[in-house]
Amino acid sequence: MKICVNELKNHVGEKIIFSGFVDAIRDKKWVMFVILRDATGKVQMTIEKSDENNKELLERMSNVTVESTIRAEVEVLENTSVKLGGIELIPSKIDITSSAEPLPFDFNNLAGVNIDTRMDFRWLDLRNEKNMLVRQIESCLVQAMRQFLYDNHFTEIHTPKLIGTASESGSSVFEVKYFDRLAYLAQSPQFYKQMALAGGLDKVFEVAPCFRAENSNTNRHATEFTSFDLEFSYIDSYEDVMNLEEDLLIAGLSKVKDEYGDKILEVFGKEVIVPTKPFPRIKLKDLYEKLHEKYGFSIPTEDIGDMNAEAEKLTYRLALEEYNSEFMFVVDYAATKRPFYHMRDENGKLQGYDLIWRGTEITSGAQREHRYEELCKNAKEKGLGEDVKFYLQFFKYGCPPHGGFAIGVDRLTMLLLGLTIKETQFLFRGPNRLDP
Amino acid sequence: MKICVNELKNHVGEKIIFSGFVDAIRDKKWVMFVILRDATGKVQMTIEKSDENNKELLERMSNVTVESTIRAEVEVLENTSVKLGGIELIPSKIDITSSAEPLPFDFNNLAGVNIDTRMDFRWLDLRNEKNMLVRQIESCLVQAMRQFLYDNHFTEIHTPKLIGTASESGSSVFEVKYFDRLAYLAQSPQFYKQMALAGGLDKVFEVAPCFRAENSNTNRHATEFTSFDLEFSYIDSYEDVMNLEEDLLIAGLSKVKDEYGDKILEVFGKEVIVPTKPFPRIKLKDLYEKLHEKYGFSIPTEDIGDMNAEAEKLTYRLALEEYNSEFMFVVDYAATKRPFYHMRDENGKLQGYDLIWRGTEITSGAQREHRYEELCKNAKEKGLGEDVKFYLQFFKYGCPPHGGFAIGVDRLTMLLLGLTIKETQFLFRGPNRLDP
Repeated sequence: MKICVNELKNHVGEKIIFSGFVDAIRDKKWVMFVILRDATGKVQMTIEKSDENNKELLERMSNVTVESTIRAEVEVLENTSVKLGGIELIPSKIDITSSAEPLPFDFNNLAGVNIDTRMDFRWLDLRNEKNMLVRQIESCLVQAMRQFLYDNHFTEIHTPKLIGTASESGSSVFEVKYFDRLAYLAQSPQFYKQMALAGGLDKVFEVAPCFRAENSNTNRHATEFTSFDLEFSYIDSYEDVMNLEEDLLIAGLSKVKDEYGDKILEVFGKEVIVPTKPFPRIKLKDLYEKLHEKYGFSIPTEDIGDMNAEAEKLTYRLALEEYNSEFMFVVDYAATKRPFYHMRDENGKLQGYDLIWRGTEITSGAQREHRYEELCKNAKEKGLGEDVKFYLQFFKYGCPPHGGFAIGVDRLTMLLLGLTIKETQFLFRGPNRLDP
Repeated sequence: MKICVNELKNHVGEKIIFSGFVDAIRDKKWVMFVILRDATGKVQMTIEKSDENNKELLERMSNVTVESTIRAEVEVLENTSVKLGGIELIPSKIDITSSAEPLPFDFNNLAGVNIDTRMDFRWLDLRNEKNMLVRQIESCLVQAMRQFLYDNHFTEIHTPKLIGTASESGSSVFEVKYFDRLAYLAQSPQFYKQMALAGGLDKVFEVAPCFRAENSNTNRHATEFTSFDLEFSYIDSYEDVMNLEEDLLIAGLSKVKDEYGDKILEVFGKEVIVPTKPFPRIKLKDLYEKLHEKYGFSIPTEDIGDMNAEAEKLTYRLALEEYNSEFMFVVDYAATKRPFYHMRDENGKLQGYDLIWRGTEITSGAQREHRYEELCKNAKEKGLGEDVKFYLQFFKYGCPPHGGFAIGVDRLTMLLLGLTIKETQFLFRGPNRLDP
């Protein structure tokens, strides 16, 4: 396996193979400096011009364009005067493994580059240090969150994305031509997570794509996104779900802070704050009052019983000011504003919550209605019929009380690093964007 | 968090809450035994009839149907005469949390049940001990394989499944109505894994759904399946890819053997054999000769340069008989039989391989063609034009030599446990199966 830039210090004095992109060439009078780059950083390769043996190497390198890739036999030397990690590579042989044409823009300086151009050439955009870090940090975050679930005996499942009936809300579902009939793309694994629990698995999770055919262009929505979904049985109330989400986020953010905290502060100017338990919790009614009292905000009539973008922003401000917390759980949403499968208590009170982080809702969680009769009644009230019939059957033959939630992986990363969704997704997908 | 059956031995003498499915009720003259079940096993709850205090509990439980779920306050007692783990639960309070209607079939005895009925009621089918184990073992296998990649500094990516052009072979791609145009469902993340490497990430992987619009009904194909995909840069040849795949499979199978080896032998009658390195490797030409010599097999003319199902089966036999190995790498396939992006050497020899395990191809791996001109030439030879144009651009601005492979997660689990694909997938998807 290739030796990376961040491992070179362990190979000082050795002859090794080093491969990478040609980041820059500084051709001085007496020496040629070739800056090489891989996913972990940059290193200097030094070719002395006075050395007769270097003639062929110099000739070869003088024809190389930046962003080409090379494979070199080098000696690794310690040299404290070299800025890049105090290491320099002295080559004895160099192969050009690919040749780069001139790039359409300078990925080191993206300030003036249109976001659409960047997306058209996303593989060049990704070479930007910041964008490469986004990928590595997201991977680290998801790994830590998954590990937390494995440690708590969750089973990973892979639910189908091709489904036979347009569930939940037909209007925003993509249609697929499926041989001589239609299929639909799953908006979420919600129904299937619950099916797994009805099947006797205690705790399940999935990290997978979700699809929403919403023709809207915002900074936080996409037609396809990666969802971190979990569901678990034998809960006593949605409090158990909130508790688990606290632990999950603490596990994820702790690991990210350990591995990338300094880098995130340096490159993105954001501090990674690991929250402490319990996160503050507030009833929607009390929240409305506070937001009015402190910021003069009134929820518009059509949003009563729910939040809107402005309310989310102010809730974050309130959380910081009154609770010294970046996170805030909001409970007691109106049942009319929530899906039929969220449980209500005997007074009709919704057994669910939203979690607000840095001004944006990152999660809706709930205890689910697991009792067949109640669930049928709720579905009927929402005017749902044939579309959810297959789902209702899951609860006919016994199903434990359960709850769960989903977190958008891209959205979490976006808020962590202070980016837009287009900058955060590996490849953004929106109504006008299907390429590359 | 719920205390599970396999944790009860740590709670002997304690009063706890125990929840689970009612697996069976044995109503004897002097005592009622209620067998409770969760995802980790079964336990006996004992209600003595002579105890006056139990009157209400007995009345409640006498109305409970099997497969209903309960939540009970119990004392955990050690009792060596109890078959189920030497533990019994003595309840002081029981709540019925859901009531089961009579089941359409007995999931403990699936021998006589039609596979389609089982799939129609998959959530009941999953309650079968064997089927629940399949899920847990698959989860364990994928976790171990992912962990191996994290340990080797791979970055997890999430590539789009909605794509703008029908790549590779248009005939087997699903079409999606995407606002006022068409999109397609990704058959594999191949192009995007490579884009990530062109973007400077060294090593990437993804575990995600793939879609194939193939109207065939076999025991190993599905229209949607979970693919474990990886790709990494700076390789010297496809040998590096094969080496990594050996290590990956050894990591996965070792963990499965440790955690489930005995259970797999007991329940599925299959031994988990952790392979040793190197796996045997054979050239296709030599393989043809051996198969002819030993088993009188000749490859049909249309398959020359490639394998077919019969050849795969016999290759497994050969691997066992001559190499004492369940695995066999086959190399030197005809370039005409392989995708245009597999590298050929200067003599046109294909730089890829297949891996056969237990009679089935589980992987096609290769060094990829990373040089723009060569890749364009290969695409043209295969008659590919507009469809791959976006992909070819990835290689115009420098890209390191690289390779990779994909393993079907369901197929791997299927072969590990000796099942069909319909039994293995969480929810099978085929031309005639989109429900539930």
